[in-house]
Amino acid sequence: MSDLSLAELGEIESLRRTVARLKPGESAIVGSGDDAAVVAASDSFLVSTDTLVENHDFRLDWSSAFDLGFKSVATNLADIAAMGAKPTVLVVAMVVPKTTKISWLEQFADGLQAACDQLSPGSAIVGGDLASGEQMVISVTVHGRLDGLAPVVRSGAKVGDVVAVCGPLGKAACGLALLESGNQDLTRSYDDWVLAQLRPAPPIDQGVIANHAAASSMLDISDGLIRDLGRIAKASNVSIEIERAQLAGYEAMLDLPAQGLGVEPIGWVLQGGEDHSLLATFPATASLPRSFKAIGKVVAAGKHGVLLDGQPVSDTGWDSVAGN
Amino acid sequence: MSDLSLAELGEIESLRRTVARLKPGESAIVGSGDDAAVVAASDSFLVSTDTLVENHDFRLDWSSAFDLGFKSVATNLADIAAMGAKPTVLVVAMVVPKTTKISWLEQFADGLQAACDQLSPGSAIVGGDLASGEQMVISVTVHGRLDGLAPVVRSGAKVGDVVAVCGPLGKAACGLALLESGNQDLTRSYDDWVLAQLRPAPPIDQGVIANHAAASSMLDISDGLIRDLGRIAKASNVSIEIERAQLAGYEAMLDLPAQGLGVEPIGWVLQGGEDHSLLATFPATASLPRSFKAIGKVVAAGKHGVLLDGQPVSDTGWDSVAGN
Repeated sequence: MSDLSLAELGEIESLRRTVARLKPGESAIVGSGDDAAVVAASDSFLVSTDTLVENHDFRLDWSSAFDLGFKSVATNLADIAAMGAKPTVLVVAMVVPKTTKISWLEQFADGLQAACDQLSPGSAIVGGDLASGEQMVISVTVHGRLDGLAPVVRSGAKVGDVVAVCGPLGKAACGLALLESGNQDLTRSYDDWVLAQLRPAPPIDQGVIANHAAASSMLDISDGLIRDLGRIAKASNVSIEIERAQLAGYEAMLDLPAQGLGVEPIGWVLQGGEDHSLLATFPATASLPRSFKAIGKVVAAGKHGVLLDGQPVSDTGWDSVAGN
Repeated sequence: MSDLSLAELGEIESLRRTVARLKPGESAIVGSGDDAAVVAASDSFLVSTDTLVENHDFRLDWSSAFDLGFKSVATNLADIAAMGAKPTVLVVAMVVPKTTKISWLEQFADGLQAACDQLSPGSAIVGGDLASGEQMVISVTVHGRLDGLAPVVRSGAKVGDVVAVCGPLGKAACGLALLESGNQDLTRSYDDWVLAQLRPAPPIDQGVIANHAAASSMLDISDGLIRDLGRIAKASNVSIEIERAQLAGYEAMLDLPAQGLGVEPIGWVLQGGEDHSLLATFPATASLPRSFKAIGKVVAAGKHGVLLDGQPVSDTGWDSVAGN
């Protein structure tokens, strides 16, 4: 049965089979199958949307259906964590070729569910849409709740704050470089780095913890450390100084695969995207959560938004349309 | 400036310019530009998502950018209205070719805003995502609030209930047939019907009114009257009988363009999709809202879900993947 394609089974039945693999979660009052889902909320909710496009954001020869489902959820959960909030429900809109097998969609759904369960237990997919098209597109909208806390926005960094990171830097970019090398021995040897690219596991629960620890600004690093530091600097009208010495641990984590590829790891650490690690600022008086590592400090706004060991660095990260 | 393309301006600046044309609405606490928007809520919220794919759901030689923006919002607002709820905020994820002009995106944004303003004043776009791809995809996620009412689901129809419709039947399908005819004299003569296809204006505010009037089930007609009646029948475990005589007014509204095309209008009335009119059932004792017109009644579940003048009719509407 599951070898049937979307064209053979039709959109509605294909969607039904895919949704049947998902669990309701703890927030849905009316789940999938009606015109809209009804979700429990308190006085507010958060919402964010992000889209993955075939051959732009992923390649089907690199990512399994499960990988893609997992990554689609993981990257969206990180947007809620980065507001200092707890993810609740997600809706997933997909465009897939008519030839897509139902078994592929089912494994994709398993990846969606696994990411909810592993990264933010209790969160769930409550709705979806399935359409056919030539190029695969996965568009996820995620919701979250603050439970009385204030949201942690990008614009709250203050002069004197500590800049800190929770999660890896450059690991997903290293994994991408391994895949792009086409060297199967290397990708097998360093499968943990490849997995960081294909199935990232950002520290979702640390978003609320950072909020409780009085984080003054936060985002998740999707486009590289320097570029995302630049966003906080611009939104908060400050400059940010980081120290190369504080990044040594992140470089060391990438040393072996970097040697294998014959490159220096610092480029991945500074400019690599898609780790979705949390990047936050905290008042100097606050005690940093144990999961966060200090890498620099917030200084008065200067001509340049971001400085590395006192030297300006440009924010040439990754713009998903223009490239670079 | 606005003649630049997405490739020339980059995703982030293009998105910023597009979002700059949108108004914040009455529910957004933190608007677009951070990792997530924060939206006011009461004890629950509704969420639904729907996707339009180029050359499947729309054609760029038929729809203007404004039309597409308007339709993307209108069809999603109808999903919230069909739950008996009031729309609040929407997020819009788009995939467009790199060659897309910024002026096109700006007109699209104007269409989004116009639909919010005209169909559900106070509702607003609070977030979005812009990615590049070969085929245009528009994925909208809409939210709503119930303000203490219970949601009107599909499964609540009871034997003896009156079946009623608010809004046109077959008008959007008639407009599509006019466009497909390629006859420019006809499309100009019957531009109101063409507009029903390109820029539908479902009766969004009547969803809450139907809820207050004790509607027992409701949906918006996206795939044709018979197919959507079949959905209520199946979800509620009942059959539904409608009368051709009660549809005469809907047929009459399509008479002139039908004559122009040399067809009978009843096919559009019964099977035409994309009107997004509200289809609901009400207890026989309830007083029907003035905007709703009775077209049949709910009877005990039989072998066939939907009957027209006592004869079974099949639910051959429109499945957006399998077609038919």
